[in-house]
This record gives sequence, structure tokens and C-alpha cells, in this order.
Amino acid sequence: MYQITMAYSYWFNAKHEQASVYDLFTRKNPFGAQPALGEPACSLPLRLLTPRAGPTARAGGEFTIFCGLEECVRFIANFSFSDEQVDYLRSIMPAADPAFFDWLATVDCSKVSVYALEEGTVCFPRVPLLRIEGPLAVCQMLETPLLNLCNYATLVCTCAARLKVAAGPGKQLLEFGARRAQGPDGAISASRYSYIGGFDGTSNVQAGMMFGITPRGTHAHSYIMAHTGLDDLKEDGGRSLRTTAGEEIDLVQQALEWGAKLKEATGIVTGNQGELAAFIAYARSYPSNFLALVDSYDTLKSGIPNYLAVSLALHAAGYEPVGVRLDSGDLAYLSREVRAMFVRAAEAFELPSFGKHRIVASNDINEKTLESLNQQGHEIDVFGIGTNLVTCQGQPALGGVYKLCEIEGKPRIKLSQEVEKVTLPGRKEAYRLYNRDGDPVLDLMCRVGGETPQEGRRILCKHPFDEVKRCYMTPSKVEKLHTLVWGPPEEGADSLLLKDLPSIEQVRDTAMARLDTLRTDHRRLLNPTPYKVSVSTELHTHLHQLWQSNVPITDLS
Amino acid sequence: MYQITMAYSYWFNAKHEQASVYDLFTRKNPFGAQPALGEPACSLPLRLLTPRAGPTARAGGEFTIFCGLEECVRFIANFSFSDEQVDYLRSIMPAADPAFFDWLATVDCSKVSVYALEEGTVCFPRVPLLRIEGPLAVCQMLETPLLNLCNYATLVCTCAARLKVAAGPGKQLLEFGARRAQGPDGAISASRYSYIGGFDGTSNVQAGMMFGITPRGTHAHSYIMAHTGLDDLKEDGGRSLRTTAGEEIDLVQQALEWGAKLKEATGIVTGNQGELAAFIAYARSYPSNFLALVDSYDTLKSGIPNYLAVSLALHAAGYEPVGVRLDSGDLAYLSREVRAMFVRAAEAFELPSFGKHRIVASNDINEKTLESLNQQGHEIDVFGIGTNLVTCQGQPALGGVYKLCEIEGKPRIKLSQEVEKVTLPGRKEAYRLYNRDGDPVLDLMCRVGGETPQEGRRILCKHPFDEVKRCYMTPSKVEKLHTLVWGPPEEGADSLLLKDLPSIEQVRDTAMARLDTLRTDHRRLLNPTPYKVSVSTELHTHLHQLWQSNVPITDLS
Repeated sequence: MYQITMAYSYWFNAKHEQASVYDLFTRKNPFGAQPALGEPACSLPLRLLTPRAGPTARAGGEFTIFCGLEECVRFIANFSFSDEQVDYLRSIMPAADPAFFDWLATVDCSKVSVYALEEGTVCFPRVPLLRIEGPLAVCQMLETPLLNLCNYATLVCTCAARLKVAAGPGKQLLEFGARRAQGPDGAISASRYSYIGGFDGTSNVQAGMMFGITPRGTHAHSYIMAHTGLDDLKEDGGRSLRTTAGEEIDLVQQALEWGAKLKEATGIVTGNQGELAAFIAYARSYPSNFLALVDSYDTLKSGIPNYLAVSLALHAAGYEPVGVRLDSGDLAYLSREVRAMFVRAAEAFELPSFGKHRIVASNDINEKTLESLNQQGHEIDVFGIGTNLVTCQGQPALGGVYKLCEIEGKPRIKLSQEVEKVTLPGRKEAYRLYNRDGDPVLDLMCRVGGETPQEGRRILCKHPFDEVKRCYMTPSKVEKLHTLVWGPPEEGADSLLLKDLPSIEQVRDTAMARLDTLRTDHRRLLNPTPYKVSVSTELHTHLHQLWQSNVPITDLS
Repeated sequence: MYQITMAYSYWFNAKHEQASVYDLFTRKNPFGAQPALGEPACSLPLRLLTPRAGPTARAGGEFTIFCGLEECVRFIANFSFSDEQVDYLRSIMPAADPAFFDWLATVDCSKVSVYALEEGTVCFPRVPLLRIEGPLAVCQMLETPLLNLCNYATLVCTCAARLKVAAGPGKQLLEFGARRAQGPDGAISASRYSYIGGFDGTSNVQAGMMFGITPRGTHAHSYIMAHTGLDDLKEDGGRSLRTTAGEEIDLVQQALEWGAKLKEATGIVTGNQGELAAFIAYARSYPSNFLALVDSYDTLKSGIPNYLAVSLALHAAGYEPVGVRLDSGDLAYLSREVRAMFVRAAEAFELPSFGKHRIVASNDINEKTLESLNQQGHEIDVFGIGTNLVTCQGQPALGGVYKLCEIEGKPRIKLSQEVEKVTLPGRKEAYRLYNRDGDPVLDLMCRVGGETPQEGRRILCKHPFDEVKRCYMTPSKVEKLHTLVWGPPEEGADSLLLKDLPSIEQVRDTAMARLDTLRTDHRRLLNPTPYKVSVSTELHTHLHQLWQSNVPITDLS
């Protein structure tokens, strides 16, 4: 509402067409050190409060993955007010000049230009994700939707990438969060952007259908509870399985026989009969994709023995079982014990593949759990992560902001008692500078049309506010980070519209490649090295002149 | 996906039509004591770790407000698979029997019955929010959507109600969270359900339009930054204001003159000229609704003096200004100082209404901030709350679950090492029992068709798992909590469908009335008294028989 309120006031004061420039950016990487719940907010920099190591050291948060660009561009391309919306606004603003609504009905983004980072880019605080240029009132009204579309997309993608880093190489990650997401499209967005952040699949079929991500899912405890014993499986067809050789067998009888052989060969005894019946029923329906939830009664005494009995029967019928899912208990210990039982069975029956059956784990997993599992040693191959991923429990909102930085060619600065909240004035663009090893080491913000970094040429890079933080850098490679993604046709941007937006696979590839080139000391979760974001000397001078001229000198006398 | 996977397996095993009963419920009230970030999860009951008083005591979380029912009923009423969806599922399940998809294309909820608490009801753990009855496979597939639709709705409504309790009586609360919400419909849901939880307005115009909630909003810092000085206001019409008497005045000149009078009468000196220009421009467009953001430069030295100068000019022109918004700094201190300045101006100019201009505050407000403001004393009339409300930062996911409790008339129990995760078997309904003072004191769960509580008759109420927690209760009033909200026509439920769903205002009234009848010791945020949820003797016996028969006795020898 305040965007509309301001738009009216700009229109009323004939300022609505003034040329304006807004930056959309973050002030901090997400999932950084946070005061503990119940601790008072503290004005000391949190870094000072955080020990550099030791059991209480907290994860750092030193990178962000920018997402949401496609949705922003689609929004901008379609931005307008319907008759119904205009009528509604007229009804709630009875004191407004009626001519405003005639103007509002004509509004679109045809005079707006958008410069953006590539979607999926690893990015850092203060570097604009988007720079929006155009008529003041229109650009102002874009604030809330653009922030909404970038904030959560970027947050959940970054959360996913951090979980992937935490899980370590070679592990599969599945997004299992639909039931706990903040609404239906929260769930869809979580699936989409966690896939971009490195997840391998989702339980959300709608998201799978929309984005071409493979939906994944097995069965719940309720499936086990729906079976009470082997009598549930009826003689007339409810026990049969066709082998890969085409022969009809009684899977109940086979499972019982293999259970007996298992006991004889390994001492492992099958467990709860309701669970065994459920596994047999499930195996009948998915003979070539048998993955069983094994913790309904007792993972080691019932679930795994039952799984092995049914798996041996399936194997004898020509099928290769997939594995098990653990959803409770001590996952490190249980996964190691399960692996040991798999290996015992593999050796006893000379079936090496049984030693490698998959172990999926899915009980309230978050970064800390993954870290702790890695410390303890575990045998989990696949992690299913729900609540902590989709709601980003470590920090459920990204603090993206949208600030006016220029109007009618005049740079504007937003002041604040907190230096980190002072904005950088004017039209800015950013360059990523690479060292001789090809590592990105610094993002440099420059005035558009001003000095820019050049390959092989030394440049002084300054912290925007800390005068002793500055460095020289002779980049081996310079990468311009912003490109025009939406603009009036005369600027030649019409080829950059929807039809050229990258696919979700391409965005994921960008994110994975970008994350991969980031030095591991920036990427690691515990006490990462901050990545440098600097300004050019020219922008620095400009900033400080404007800052000083806007802050009056207090007279203390 | 796992719902579809299970549905296929049930269908394949010819179990899909079995009569089943599921409960959707929570295990804990949200926003209860939580381990601090970085603390290991602890197996001791958290209550034991939480001191009953003192500075580290944490908010308790002893009530929940059920929301999401209308969306659940709409979902159920429309549940079916489109051809496109069926084709997609066929494509990702190539090994499945093709006849399954023919069946899937016919699926709907015409054989499903739903019993529910009234939307907006204050409710407690274990009492089902919904009881779903019908064919096994269909009911199973409803799990994820129903949880998704109830979890966040209930969570954010409860969050809003807690903030209302924390703000105290007579305060207005506005939802300002669209930019930080978890996606566009996260924002819409937050507006809807925080209104039900007691908020008075939203900044989200779309939500306002959809639900008839009044949208609220003033202007941003960027509006101030878009003005540099009084020269911004052009002579040709950019300075004029029509008084309520119809006279054209120069508002710039008037504001400057009233600024001079203000200085003479009170010593208060106007501040930054860009801000003053912005206030004048804003007042021109909203003369009868002037509410200014006053912290862009310096609240007390610039914002308030400028506000008063413009307000005095507006008042002289026949308009009554509304007030100011504070968005940074020490809100308790600033609001008191602002009030004092308002009172000084009111006395100096003999305008009592100026002492009562509204003070709106909106900087990262949460329960703790409200509590702290109340302790310090403040003069804030209206709170604008965004991030902490819409993302429910204190606990961003409600842990609602959906459990099978009966199949083909046979009660089912889900076992767990953790007693609190053991489910209550069978079809259950709940009654709220009131004491002689008319306070609800206990919710009693009974078997459907079994013994039920009667007014004036003593009944033994038992904790489901703690054998020494039991009490007698002679209710002065007994309220049945569940009603049929969706069901096959032959059960007479067709009158309970969409057309009879209560309006958002009615649901809000329910929530407010229910919260109001809750004893204050249950409702308070700090160390509330737990509300009792018990089971009838019959259900207790039934539960424990089934539990014992399902847990085998381990042989330790």
C-alpha cells in the first residue's frame, strides 16, 4: 500500500516521471552468526562475539546465491493494473484525485530498464542484485514485488547450497518439505530454488512437473501401520510376483524362506510381521525400485532383517533392491550398523551389491546434524531434508532492500546511525576480479561510465567505509557482473526478454560452477574468510563527499 | 511423491478402497521454549531446563489457533487429477501398471468425510484439527496438501495472536511483511491469517482486495530521499493547498511561517530542508491523512519539528494531521520524547488534539521487543510488524502431522521410542469442558460412539501417558469440538460445503472470542499454565492395551 500511496503523491506533485535509479541488494550474507534466542540484540559487531573456533563457534554465512531473476523479469514484463484493481484502489482512496486512476490504468514497465547479476551467481553484500532505472513512481511500485520475488528465492537457494557443502561430496540431497512450507507456492519455490542450489530431487510432484525436476518418494510409516500381519496379503493374487524370467512366484513364501536362510547364514532374525507384510506388499508393487522405511518398530531388530528377507527374495526373482530409509534415532550409529548388516548379508550370500544398498536418512536434518554426522562417521548415501530447508530455519528471511540511489541524475544517499545501513549513491556496476590462480577474490563497485578495472592493470580497491581496509589488485581476469535483462526496445534489450531466459538446468549449472570456483575458505561453513567487496577510488570519493555534505556538523556548545 | 507412490502400492495390492481414518494434529503448541541456536538438541524435557522466572526465562507457547480449514475444504472439494497431471505421472512411473492411471483419473473426495474444529478455534496438542475418513489411497494422498494448508495458516495466526497479547490492549497492529514473506502467496496467507489472529490491517493491497482487509501504508525513506530542498516544490501549483474552506494557500510559505511560530512558542526548530520539502509534498497529496516517517535524518531534531510545522499549517487550513512513524532507534525513548514534543506543541498553541497524534513504530518488532517496550514504558499507538510475523521467526514451521489411526474398523497405533510421538488409536472426538466460572479448563478426547462427558456429571480425565496425571471434572458446560464439514451427501453434509463457510470476519471474531475466554494464565506469554488435554478412561484403556500388544517384551537373558 505504501508504494501506491507514494505513487499517488509523486503523481500529485508531478514527480512521477522523474528519472530514478534503485538498487536491490542485501546487507549481509544469510545464515551468519545470530544472537541466540532470548539474547538481547547487541550493538557490538557479532564477529567480535564469536570465538574463531571451539565448540560454540557458529557457522559464518559468507556467500549468497542470487535467485529469483526469471520471476522478476516475468513480473516486470506483465506489470500493469487491471480494471478491477484500479476500481478497488479507487474505492479505498476516496480522497484521491480521480485522474490518478486514469494514469494508473496506463502504467507498465516499458520505460524501465533492469540490470542484473546472472541468476545463480554467487554474490555478496552491497553488490546490487538488480539495478532498476526508470520513472520514479513506477520504479517505486516495483519495490515490494521484486523484494518478495528475490528474497525467499535467494535465501532458500543459499540454504540448499550450504546443506550441499555440509553434506560433502558424493551425497545425494532430496527436498522433502512440501508439508511444512509456508504455503503452497512456498513449497513450489523451495523445490525450484533448492534444486538450483544443488539438490538432486524433490518430493513435490507439482514442482517436478513444472520444472522437470525428478520427483522422489517412497512410503510413510502409515503404509506400515496399514498392515497388521501376513494375513493381510490375500491368496488370490495378493502374494504373487512375476520374476524377471516371467515366472509367477509366491513372494510371501519366498520372503519367509529367505528369512530362514538369512537366520541360518547370519543369525539375523526377521521382525514384526505387519512390517514384513507391508514390505512384501510394497515390493510387489515396486519390484525394481524397492526402498523400505525401516524404523517403524525397531530398525536393527525388525526393519533391516525384514528388508533383507524381502530383498533376497526379490534378488532371487531377478530384481535388484535399492535400499532403506531411516527416519528416527541416532542416524550415525544406525547407518553404520545397517551398513554392517548389509555387508554381512552380502558376504553370507556372496551378493556384493547388497553391501552397497542405499541408506537414505530423513529426520529433521539441518547443517548442524550434517556436520555432526560427518564428525561421527556415517554410512548415509542420501539425505532427505524438509522443514529446515524449506523454511530456512536458521534465518527464515533474507533482508534484501531496495534503495533509491539517483534521481534526475543527482545521486542520493540514505543516511543511518549504523554505518552499514548507509547506502552507496549513484548508478553503480560491479566487476569480479580474479587472481593469477583464477580464483575470484574481490568484487569492485564502480560508477557507471567512470573508471573500470582492466586486466593486468593495478587498481586500488577500497572498503566503502573502513578507511584502513584497502588493497591493490592486478586482476588476471575481469568479469563484468551486471547485464541489461529488461529494457526499452531502443536500448536493444528486447532480445533479452523471456524467450532468452536460461532453463532451470542452466541456472543450476551456473550456481554449481560459481560455487565451485569460490575458494574453499570462503565457501566453508565454519568461520569462512570474508570475500572482499570494495569500491573504486572514484566511487569512494563520491560517496564520502555526499555523505559529509548530508550529515550536518552538530554544535555541542 | 510418496503419497502417489503409496497410492499405487495400495491400488496394486487392492487395498486402496479400505476404510481408513486419519488424524491431523500437532504435538506441541508453537513458539514454545526452544534450545538456543547452536545448543545441542537435548533429550530432557525442555520445561526442566527452563527456569520458571528471571531474565533468561523464555516464552512458553501454550495455545494454538487453528486456521486453514476453508482452504482445506476448497482443496478437498476440488481434488482430482487433470489429464495433464495423469500423463505426467504416467511418464515418471514407467514401471507401473497402466490401469492405475485410469483409476487415478477418476479419483475425487466424494467418499471422504472430514470432521474439523471450527476455524479460528483456540486448540491444543493432540486434539485432532481434522479427522479424515474414507478410502485408504485417497485419504493418504490428502496428507501433504492438508498439512501444507493447515501448518503455515495455523502458525502465522498463532504468531499474530501472540503479538497482539504482547502488545497489550488498545494497540493497533498492522502486518507489513510482503517483501520478506516466503513467496507471493506466503505474503497473502500472512495477511489473511494475521488478520484472523487479531491484526487490524495489512500493507498488502492484493490481500486487502481478496479478503476485504483495509490496506495501510504511508511512505518510505526513499520518498524523503527523492526530495533535496524546498526548491523541489515548483511555484506553478507545486506549493498550493486548497483549505477545507476552499481557499488556495501556499503550503510552503505556511509551513515556514508555522515553523517560525513553533520556534518562538516552544523553542523547537525545524530541520533538514529536503525532509521538510518531502513532508509538504506529501501533505499536499494527503491533507486529511498526513502521517509522516520522521527518522530519515534525526527524529527529534529534524523529523518531529518538520512534522509539527507542516501539521500546524495543515491544521490552520482545516485539516487534522494523523501522526508519525518511527522506523529506527530506541523506540521506547523516542516515542516518549515525541509524545512530550506533541504535548508541548498542543499546549503552546492550545490544540489539545496535537497531544494525541498517533505514533506508529515499525522496526523489526517481535514479541521480545514488545515485552521490552512495555517494561520501559512507551507512547506507541500502532505497531507495524513485518519479517518476524510473516516468517514466524521464532519458529518458522508448525510440526503438524497426519497419522493413520484406524483401518477397516481396526484401530492402529504408531509406536515410537519417544512417548510423545506415540499416536492415539481409533476414531476420536473431543469435548471442551468448562468449570463453574465458565472457563474452558480441559479438552477431553473420547472414542466416537463411546462414553462422552455430560454437564453436571463427574468424569475421570486421564493424561494419555502419565498415569499419575488424572483429574475428576464435573463440567458446568460441555462443548463438542468437531463437526462434519465435508462428507458424502447421504451423510447430510452437503449443506456444510463451501457456501456455508464463515467469512474472514466471522473467523476473526471466533478467534478473538476464543482467545478472550481462555484464562489469562494459559494465554500469557511468559511461563503460561499448560492447558490440560486428557483422554476418557475408555480411550485410555484402549490405547494402553493396543500399545502393550504392539510392543514386544524384549528378552534380556
